[in-house]
Amino acid sequence: MVGYAFMGAAHSQAWRTAPRFFDLPLDPRMRVVAGRDADAVERAARRLGWEESTTDWHTLLERDDVQLVDVCTPGDTHAEIAIAALGAGKHVLCEKPLANSVAEAERMVDAAEAAWRTNGTLAMVGFTYRRVPAVQLARELVADGRIGRIRHVRAQYLQDWLADETAPLTWRLQKEKAGSGALGDIGAHIVDLAAFITGERLTGVSALTTTFVTERPLAVGRAGIAGEGDTGTGEVTVDDAAVFFGRLSGGGTASFEATRYATGRKNAIRIEISGDRGALAFDFEDMNVLEYFDAREPGRTAGFRRILVTEPDHPYTGAWWPAGHGLGYEHAFTHQVVDLVGDIAAGRPPHPSFADGLAVQRVLDAVERSSADGSRWIDIPAPDDSTD
Amino acid sequence: MVGYAFMGAAHSQAWRTAPRFFDLPLDPRMRVVAGRDADAVERAARRLGWEESTTDWHTLLERDDVQLVDVCTPGDTHAEIAIAALGAGKHVLCEKPLANSVAEAERMVDAAEAAWRTNGTLAMVGFTYRRVPAVQLARELVADGRIGRIRHVRAQYLQDWLADETAPLTWRLQKEKAGSGALGDIGAHIVDLAAFITGERLTGVSALTTTFVTERPLAVGRAGIAGEGDTGTGEVTVDDAAVFFGRLSGGGTASFEATRYATGRKNAIRIEISGDRGALAFDFEDMNVLEYFDAREPGRTAGFRRILVTEPDHPYTGAWWPAGHGLGYEHAFTHQVVDLVGDIAAGRPPHPSFADGLAVQRVLDAVERSSADGSRWIDIPAPDDSTD
Amino acid sequence: MVGYAFMGAAHSQAWRTAPRFFDLPLDPRMRVVAGRDADAVERAARRLGWEESTTDWHTLLERDDVQLVDVCTPGDTHAEIAIAALGAGKHVLCEKPLANSVAEAERMVDAAEAAWRTNGTLAMVGFTYRRVPAVQLARELVADGRIGRIRHVRAQYLQDWLADETAPLTWRLQKEKAGSGALGDIGAHIVDLAAFITGERLTGVSALTTTFVTERPLAVGRAGIAGEGDTGTGEVTVDDAAVFFGRLSGGGTASFEATRYATGRKNAIRIEISGDRGALAFDFEDMNVLEYFDAREPGRTAGFRRILVTEPDHPYTGAWWPAGHGLGYEHAFTHQVVDLVGDIAAGRPPHPSFADGLAVQRVLDAVERSSADGSRWIDIPAPDDSTD
Amino acid sequence: MVGYAFMGAAHSQAWRTAPRFFDLPLDPRMRVVAGRDADAVERAARRLGWEESTTDWHTLLERDDVQLVDVCTPGDTHAEIAIAALGAGKHVLCEKPLANSVAEAERMVDAAEAAWRTNGTLAMVGFTYRRVPAVQLARELVADGRIGRIRHVRAQYLQDWLADETAPLTWRLQKEKAGSGALGDIGAHIVDLAAFITGERLTGVSALTTTFVTERPLAVGRAGIAGEGDTGTGEVTVDDAAVFFGRLSGGGTASFEATRYATGRKNAIRIEISGDRGALAFDFEDMNVLEYFDAREPGRTAGFRRILVTEPDHPYTGAWWPAGHGLGYEHAFTHQVVDLVGDIAAGRPPHPSFADGLAVQRVLDAVERSSADGSRWIDIPAPDDSTD
Repeated sequence: MVGYAFMGAAHSQAWRTAPRFFDLPLDPRMRVVAGRDADAVERAARRLGWEESTTDWHTLLERDDVQLVDVCTPGDTHAEIAIAALGAGKHVLCEKPLANSVAEAERMVDAAEAAWRTNGTLAMVGFTYRRVPAVQLARELVADGRIGRIRHVRAQYLQDWLADETAPLTWRLQKEKAGSGALGDIGAHIVDLAAFITGERLTGVSALTTTFVTERPLAVGRAGIAGEGDTGTGEVTVDDAAVFFGRLSGGGTASFEATRYATGRKNAIRIEISGDRGALAFDFEDMNVLEYFDAREPGRTAGFRRILVTEPDHPYTGAWWPAGHGLGYEHAFTHQVVDLVGDIAAGRPPHPSFADGLAVQRVLDAVERSSADGSRWIDIPAPDDSTD
Repeated sequence: MVGYAFMGAAHSQAWRTAPRFFDLPLDPRMRVVAGRDADAVERAARRLGWEESTTDWHTLLERDDVQLVDVCTPGDTHAEIAIAALGAGKHVLCEKPLANSVAEAERMVDAAEAAWRTNGTLAMVGFTYRRVPAVQLARELVADGRIGRIRHVRAQYLQDWLADETAPLTWRLQKEKAGSGALGDIGAHIVDLAAFITGERLTGVSALTTTFVTERPLAVGRAGIAGEGDTGTGEVTVDDAAVFFGRLSGGGTASFEATRYATGRKNAIRIEISGDRGALAFDFEDMNVLEYFDAREPGRTAGFRRILVTEPDHPYTGAWWPAGHGLGYEHAFTHQVVDLVGDIAAGRPPHPSFADGLAVQRVLDAVERSSADGSRWIDIPAPDDSTD
Repeated sequence: MVGYAFMGAAHSQAWRTAPRFFDLPLDPRMRVVAGRDADAVERAARRLGWEESTTDWHTLLERDDVQLVDVCTPGDTHAEIAIAALGAGKHVLCEKPLANSVAEAERMVDAAEAAWRTNGTLAMVGFTYRRVPAVQLARELVADGRIGRIRHVRAQYLQDWLADETAPLTWRLQKEKAGSGALGDIGAHIVDLAAFITGERLTGVSALTTTFVTERPLAVGRAGIAGEGDTGTGEVTVDDAAVFFGRLSGGGTASFEATRYATGRKNAIRIEISGDRGALAFDFEDMNVLEYFDAREPGRTAGFRRILVTEPDHPYTGAWWPAGHGLGYEHAFTHQVVDLVGDIAAGRPPHPSFADGLAVQRVLDAVERSSADGSRWIDIPAPDDSTD
Repeated sequence: MVGYAFMGAAHSQAWRTAPRFFDLPLDPRMRVVAGRDADAVERAARRLGWEESTTDWHTLLERDDVQLVDVCTPGDTHAEIAIAALGAGKHVLCEKPLANSVAEAERMVDAAEAAWRTNGTLAMVGFTYRRVPAVQLARELVADGRIGRIRHVRAQYLQDWLADETAPLTWRLQKEKAGSGALGDIGAHIVDLAAFITGERLTGVSALTTTFVTERPLAVGRAGIAGEGDTGTGEVTVDDAAVFFGRLSGGGTASFEATRYATGRKNAIRIEISGDRGALAFDFEDMNVLEYFDAREPGRTAGFRRILVTEPDHPYTGAWWPAGHGLGYEHAFTHQVVDLVGDIAAGRPPHPSFADGLAVQRVLDAVERSSADGSRWIDIPAPDDSTD
């Protein structure tokens, strides 16, 4: 594993926990974690349960006992590490967003496809929310035809940690590290979820991104900015919020909002799907619930039903606890490990693939271009059109 | 009153009920209702409690015992009737949308301003949802500074009565009668609510409108289309849904969706306001509730509070029932009557004025132009810039 | 109508409104309202829409143009007025609780039965919440077998207007006027609702009633206590809260709580029904909604569905507004008038009958006896056993 | 650890996870798990992460490298194992209910007190729901005086796995194994939560327990009944549901319902507290939320606030994820380990102690006696009165 902060902790918990609740066809070993600071990474290794630590991620690629590299670093290093790892014949699990630019993402897709053809190695991108059981169930209901023809998606990812103007400047607010702001960090998730649940793609978008607070106090400590002092302020070089709408490939409309200024909303990933046979609604702040409306039901007894997605026959939940005993945030990371290990054992291409990550990247790129050009409509070509 | 269908019934109930619960400074009398069909309007008069009926609305203007004309017809006749009534020295209450075009609306504003200057007569447009107690409270909390600087508005008006492809073609689906579809019928409400609650205006928009089902069976009966047979299909000439976003005059973003295809949502007028000191959320499907988040509260005890807007010190509610005894849809119409009668007695300009109605019309017009031109950004000039 | 306070206002609105929205087989006229204070009752008559007023309710019984007497006074006068009215050949609508004692209620039932046999006059008791559309739908779903064998009822009527120890002493807190406190005022409603929705009766109860604050400042004004000064305190002689459980005639358990000390709950009438085929949940603070769980649905898609009870095919709602346009508190009073007028025209015994009111009274009586005797179980005989 | 089924899995996950997220003063090692079936316990050891397994729990007591015994067996063996372990100088964590009878529980309390005096060893009972962050916050708000004088507790533990009459007979439905049914299994939790959150005790109860289905098909497999065939039916010898109310030591009322027949409720632990300064509401089916009403807030802006208990300054949550990233069922077990290890290191008596477990047992016993004796009131003596 490369990186050991927020995402590193979540991934480590997943690697430790997956074999305890699921029957895995392989037995993952947590060999080595890489980071820049020797002391810090050594402490992290002990804390998170890795056998060794190193300050040089390249050494992972040379080790025979490392078959998979889990990339948990900021987005600006994803391409370099992932491409090198794939080149060395390692499977790769890469956090989202896949990269900080479409060009990087395209190179990563090329590397992934080459690695698959050459070595049968797998590359997965970490859109973890796909593996929340309620989201997985949403996907299945759409695929089963329970929603019918999709007319609307409305998706929001709402946080509020920047609503306070004195919140500090971290790497997430710097374009060279993070690529973009709310758009790439959290907007990427709802773009991916919309595609995953509906099984459709966005054919174009019109967008507005904005930065409300352009100067913030510098952060101190690990998440802060190397090479700058502990005092003073720095410039915010990414978007604070993005609103956009688009067309789905099936003709429906989709509207999106990603923001870190939605006061009182802590991690509200909300997605609603309206189809001609039914509708779905999900909010991560109540993550064990999927709301489902069945339009075939007579009006007298029709209503959005609150499905508590903890039954034995719901996705993933049978391996955990009895019905009604909810799961938490990190369980989706465990499911990611379960699926990835299963795919590796079966020699099966994983989802979301690097190509799925690239598709999201293309949408984010179109959003930025639209916003920069008077919100005008930007077409997003289908994968076939653009990868030839 | 002119017109006696859905809106006519709601207005009549308001005129009958207002003096029973509120101390009105004037004593409204329900003199005469006008409609095209003599028998039908006579039956409606008896049913709804009007003293007389007529098939010619012009006669209302000639009667000394009519001081106010309440216009409840489809939008294509608003301008003609309202301007004539104002010219005859009558106060006017006109259903929304004010008109089917900006040009008509501008003429109506001119007529209203002239009538005010000349006769002191009043002109109000019926954005009734402003007078739902929870909405009024939202406005007051913003005005009191409880929400702070507004960063985001997210507003949706979701209905589903067209989700069924076999639902019939009524006048609401014909451009020459209705002006526009979901946009003007229900989108107008959320555009007005956003302006009313925030006290800000939209400075520009980018939009996408769409028609999913272009051909529908012809409706029969009163709401149907005169001059066409009972069988066959007709063309839908208005939008089925509209998604758009814009900028508020204070710098925040606002996103909107109006649709009649949101399966399972019956009359979901949802509006959320995110500010740097607090946030609000309202959903008409739970109309007696306003959710309010106070960002000054310590994180330990902060949360969206569900205010049941039925207390004696809430707007309007003290005149009705004890706390916890909720109001329904038509109560807002009674409040409209109460406020209008109070304004007339006080010689005070009412809100929403025809100018407020024109402001909404300008937004709807910009939405249509943006959608027709590749969703590009359309600036919406401030009233001062455009009315000179 | 006798009495013109809170209930008088609600009943008057119902009499005025019913013919405007429903096709009534008779044309009710609001002839005369009776009250003790001549000026006050005259003002009330004008405000509420009655043709005349009187200070002597006996005069109503002598008038040929009065066919129905609507009793809206405190419970201590119900028996006298209702029995006299029935004796004079008038139909009677009597507010709940039917009486302040079982003995009084029994006399009223006898009078009602005699009047029905003799004159075909009708007697209805005002358990108005039965006529909230969501409650009516609940009854229908049980009757249709959608809930199956009922295992549990959990019912609460929660208010909080006495949580403040300085809230004044009104007639509702005096045993000689009100009969009992939370138990008779609001507990009566949930006892009736449990019986109405399930179609079963309570066969016995065990109970605890309690008075938290025994001394309160005297109230002033109309709702206060005649013959006492404006200062000082008085004794609370009724219960503040009651908790009890019982057995349903079908074998299930039922638990109840009625209190005026449930801080933050304004008028929370909550009732849940658990059966072996389904379940229901209702809360009056969200009165247009009925939650329904269908146990026949596969676990994968089962969940409590939130039925917005505003569809054309829901009870009563088709006469009002389109789907999604909710009703309020007083609409149930209008439905009461509609049903009563329909029953009168059809010569059909109404529900809830005085016998239904007596059944509730017997439960309340058993609750008081159980509480007074160490919460021991008190059997409640079936009507047939006790009326012989 | 003794036992390795549902509770064993939850406890193991907690022992594995606690050191990864919390700074523990000691370093727990998962030495050995005991069970009856050699193969099964060996598989469980590997799966759950224990170093060794054994079929004889007595061997744990002889090992110097075992300092703590974690008892996860059915209730009928708790007393024997816990008393022996305490006698051998081991700390004990014992699953709830503490025992199957008051007499056993009293012996366990004696053993725990003796062990504490003699060896300073600790004994904790596993009322894990105390350590759900929202519940812990509820306790703190009461202790801080935010709720004021408590008037009411209403507590329900609702499950539905027996609503189906064909659900099989497991050890949980047999009195000799489980002691009681819904009462001891889930009712115990809400009795403990009421005491924990309010800081008060029940001074008496009146109760009704019932068994709806007395004959069920025999279960097969691990959770089934040893010594019986795979076919046929067996007798249910425990309660299916219990309803009871009581008095709190501060004068308030408390009502309880525990049932496995609440169709559609999967694990709904619901508890509401009404005080004269505020109110609280919790539902485990939305476990990351605590609802709080502050009665000091003006009526205009008062309402139940939905606190998402995931902030850094909420109990336990700071060690996990950023705000808005919810926790799941098993996190409370991890918190239990964290607190117990902290108490051991500090030589501090833990809560809930065996005495707390005994207090719950006394309530359950009073419930059973009341139900058996016509629901009459049973006083529950204060601990001081009974332990002398």
